[in-house]
Amino acid sequence: MGIGDDAAVLELTPGAALLATTDLVIEDVHFRRASASPRDIGWKALAVNLSDIAAMGGIPRWALVALALPASTEAEDVDAFYAGMREAAAPHAVVIVGGDTSASPDGWMINVTLLGEHSGTPRLRSMARAGDAVAVTGALGRSAAGLAALEQGRAPARAGISSGAIEEITRAHLRPTARVAEGAWLGAQPSVHALMDCSDGLATDLGHICRESRVAARVRLERLPVSSAVREAARALGKDPIEWATGGGEDYELLLTCEAAAAKALADGLLSATGTPLTVIGEIAGGEPGVTWLDARGEAVVMQAGYEHFHG
Amino acid sequence: MGIGDDAAVLELTPGAALLATTDLVIEDVHFRRASASPRDIGWKALAVNLSDIAAMGGIPRWALVALALPASTEAEDVDAFYAGMREAAAPHAVVIVGGDTSASPDGWMINVTLLGEHSGTPRLRSMARAGDAVAVTGALGRSAAGLAALEQGRAPARAGISSGAIEEITRAHLRPTARVAEGAWLGAQPSVHALMDCSDGLATDLGHICRESRVAARVRLERLPVSSAVREAARALGKDPIEWATGGGEDYELLLTCEAAAAKALADGLLSATGTPLTVIGEIAGGEPGVTWLDARGEAVVMQAGYEHFHG
Repeated sequence: MGIGDDAAVLELTPGAALLATTDLVIEDVHFRRASASPRDIGWKALAVNLSDIAAMGGIPRWALVALALPASTEAEDVDAFYAGMREAAAPHAVVIVGGDTSASPDGWMINVTLLGEHSGTPRLRSMARAGDAVAVTGALGRSAAGLAALEQGRAPARAGISSGAIEEITRAHLRPTARVAEGAWLGAQPSVHALMDCSDGLATDLGHICRESRVAARVRLERLPVSSAVREAARALGKDPIEWATGGGEDYELLLTCEAAAAKALADGLLSATGTPLTVIGEIAGGEPGVTWLDARGEAVVMQAGYEHFHG
Repeated sequence: MGIGDDAAVLELTPGAALLATTDLVIEDVHFRRASASPRDIGWKALAVNLSDIAAMGGIPRWALVALALPASTEAEDVDAFYAGMREAAAPHAVVIVGGDTSASPDGWMINVTLLGEHSGTPRLRSMARAGDAVAVTGALGRSAAGLAALEQGRAPARAGISSGAIEEITRAHLRPTARVAEGAWLGAQPSVHALMDCSDGLATDLGHICRESRVAARVRLERLPVSSAVREAARALGKDPIEWATGGGEDYELLLTCEAAAAKALADGLLSATGTPLTVIGEIAGGEPGVTWLDARGEAVVMQAGYEHFHG
């Protein structure tokens, strides 16, 4: 009720808590028009918010979409933007219930606020405990590999990457899939302690868990789930696939800590419930908050520590 | 709970409906840095959203604030922005529960999403009925007068407007006060039918009520509440104060329709509950949706029909 009125009027499931998250997506900061279509931009602007709700173990419900566009924008680009957004929203029955539009003096700017609900106990970044296993859904480094390929310009195949690999990594960058079903399933398991999404890169995000839970983490680099497409792109572009996996960001996988003894059952259960793998990549210990990276011989190595957008 | 996590976790009052609204505020579209301080910008970005919740008769609760700033921005300007926002939020106990920050390739961009709640029946734009009186809180045209004075440059006094009048009209433009208590009170009165805020100008906003309620409105121009400060500024700047009142926008007063016989009691009750006057300015009739403006002799006159921001 009230859509098109001053505010949307929404009915939460009785007893559920409300979840709310908001994300800015700005041209030449978060995307480039040269490599992202309006449909991609709409998809991703919604997907990054879906991922935030998934990271709380919640159910996404309603989106508010604010869109500022230059006067020169074509109507078909605006239609394609909303089509991409609806395409990302549809599998989750998320409805756009309100928004705002404005002229932009410069490029495209999008703000999406996503509202969701949660009927149990949301898992927070502060809930990791010493002795926990650290695990991640899916695979890491795809989005960074896709960005690197796109930044090569319009003919990434010339860089010597197969079209199948290009498709996998550019899709991961332009049309990321939020782990909504995985978040809801994981968030309902008592053995899951801390849960968040891996949007700023494993190094930064696991660092948040360490700081907010006042624990240390050790990650075994050889255990990081990195797809052959990412390894292929890294070889072709002269990059380190492990750096993409630890520092690349925008993978929108879920990062969690859980009771170590329950990790295998969790992975089996998640795979059977959603088809998505869960990989144990390390463990939580007491001590000074921070992430230690261990190589195959168990020796600490230094990895790049974060993810920056185009700017700066 | 969950502030600083992927999403905020919020508890609605049991039985209440959720209200949600979002507004973009963009440099050189909605404000100019030359006339609006960072504190003004923060205040207004929150106030325009408070007004949307007020317009539903709701109680504002939580804000999510997304802020994109150029790399050159001074930390003290960011602090002042949030101080202005907190200053506007404090009287309503609204809490900032989440947000996002980003670099901006150009000017300042702000998106505020405000969540509120409503325990009764929200009043919509579609609820006007033939025979209703049309009424407005406070006074109209102040914001447009303030903008006109500010656009004169740094020395509006030179335009021959007294400092008291300058203070009243520039404050209305830069630090508008949302009619939150008024909206809650009016929204609880059974005699109030349609309710909305007057943010795009009386002509546009009453036009929305007419279209969505499928009714016509007649407004008596001589009844429009226009303060002496607005009349003084109009004289000094060679403008028509009635055009500011009908087409100026951004007054953030409440516009309503109500049972005609109840109008006087409503005005008395609102004044005694909140100190804010309510003025009957016209009536609703059947017929083709649209607004007719009547002069003192009861003859129809043509008024400018809307409000545009700086752009184009």
